[in-house]
Amino acid sequence: MNADSIPTYAFLQDLAVEISGDLERSKRKFVLAESCTGGLAAALLASIPGMSRFMCGSLVVYSDEAKITWLEVPSEVLSRHGAVSKEASEAMADRALDLTPSAVVSVAITGHLGPDAPANLDGHVWICKGERARTGKIEIHGELFHLDPFSKLSPQGRRLARQMQATQLVLEILRGAIAIGS
Amino acid sequence: MNADSIPTYAFLQDLAVEISGDLERSKRKFVLAESCTGGLAAALLASIPGMSRFMCGSLVVYSDEAKITWLEVPSEVLSRHGAVSKEASEAMADRALDLTPSAVVSVAITGHLGPDAPANLDGHVWICKGERARTGKIEIHGELFHLDPFSKLSPQGRRLARQMQATQLVLEILRGAIAIGS
Repeated sequence: MNADSIPTYAFLQDLAVEISGDLERSKRKFVLAESCTGGLAAALLASIPGMSRFMCGSLVVYSDEAKITWLEVPSEVLSRHGAVSKEASEAMADRALDLTPSAVVSVAITGHLGPDAPANLDGHVWICKGERARTGKIEIHGELFHLDPFSKLSPQGRRLARQMQATQLVLEILRGAIAIGS
Repeated sequence: MNADSIPTYAFLQDLAVEISGDLERSKRKFVLAESCTGGLAAALLASIPGMSRFMCGSLVVYSDEAKITWLEVPSEVLSRHGAVSKEASEAMADRALDLTPSAVVSVAITGHLGPDAPANLDGHVWICKGERARTGKIEIHGELFHLDPFSKLSPQGRRLARQMQATQLVLEILRGAIAIGS
């Protein structure tokens, strides 16, 4: 990702349209679990006509309470590793598929957009992809990303830019996961 | 609402900032259950620093499967009344509060944005507000809205405009519900 480039809403919409085309070919159903993006990935996809055939929904588990009570992320995962951790993202992706029998792909995201993040975690985002194999076994793969500092922006502007950037990452990883032959 | 006025993303963000100010005063925690808006209301609120103290999350139950398995909306409600119905919106608002013990307010939305809606339901949106009284009893109030036809827009443009308009309605109803003295 280029330093400090802010994806616009229109750019992200174009990405959602491309994903829609891929879904028409692969017919793979998916589910999202979004924390720091707050539902923006699902909202962009929902603006495309016909998306309801593929998108089951998004669990926007913004609070620890929602992660635990809606997704049944073990509270020990959050207390031991924190909500922004590989382990939390993996539990989110795994549980989202467990709760959504028709979905074969999940993408989960949890991160610190700032401005009040712990300094060593500011801009850290974990994204985990889940895939349900034909055997029913769920395979998960979590990856760490670092969002741009956007140091010239106000705290509010930086948060918004990072929400957009994190959403772009979710959409790109979803695109890879739902493509034929992935 | 003025005929065919499309709220911009920036306008909706300003509304989210105003809600954030109200939340600082009332300290009321809330939860959303979004179908047709696809998570856009939660995404706008999540862009405001500090929102995690008040927003538990949003159940973006885009498919019937998600409404039934995540929110435990009774399948009979959907088969008898349809997913776009007063009854479905009420079940969504009620169940969202049930699943989120710390929240005292919920707003649920379900609607047909088009372009492939049944003609008699095109642009129909049900929004239900839920409030948990101090006694623990949940009170719900569902209301029907008609989105603008946006007849000059393409089907894709109309869907996007209506998603924005429906999101504005969710935010305005949330604002009324979380204000002090409401």
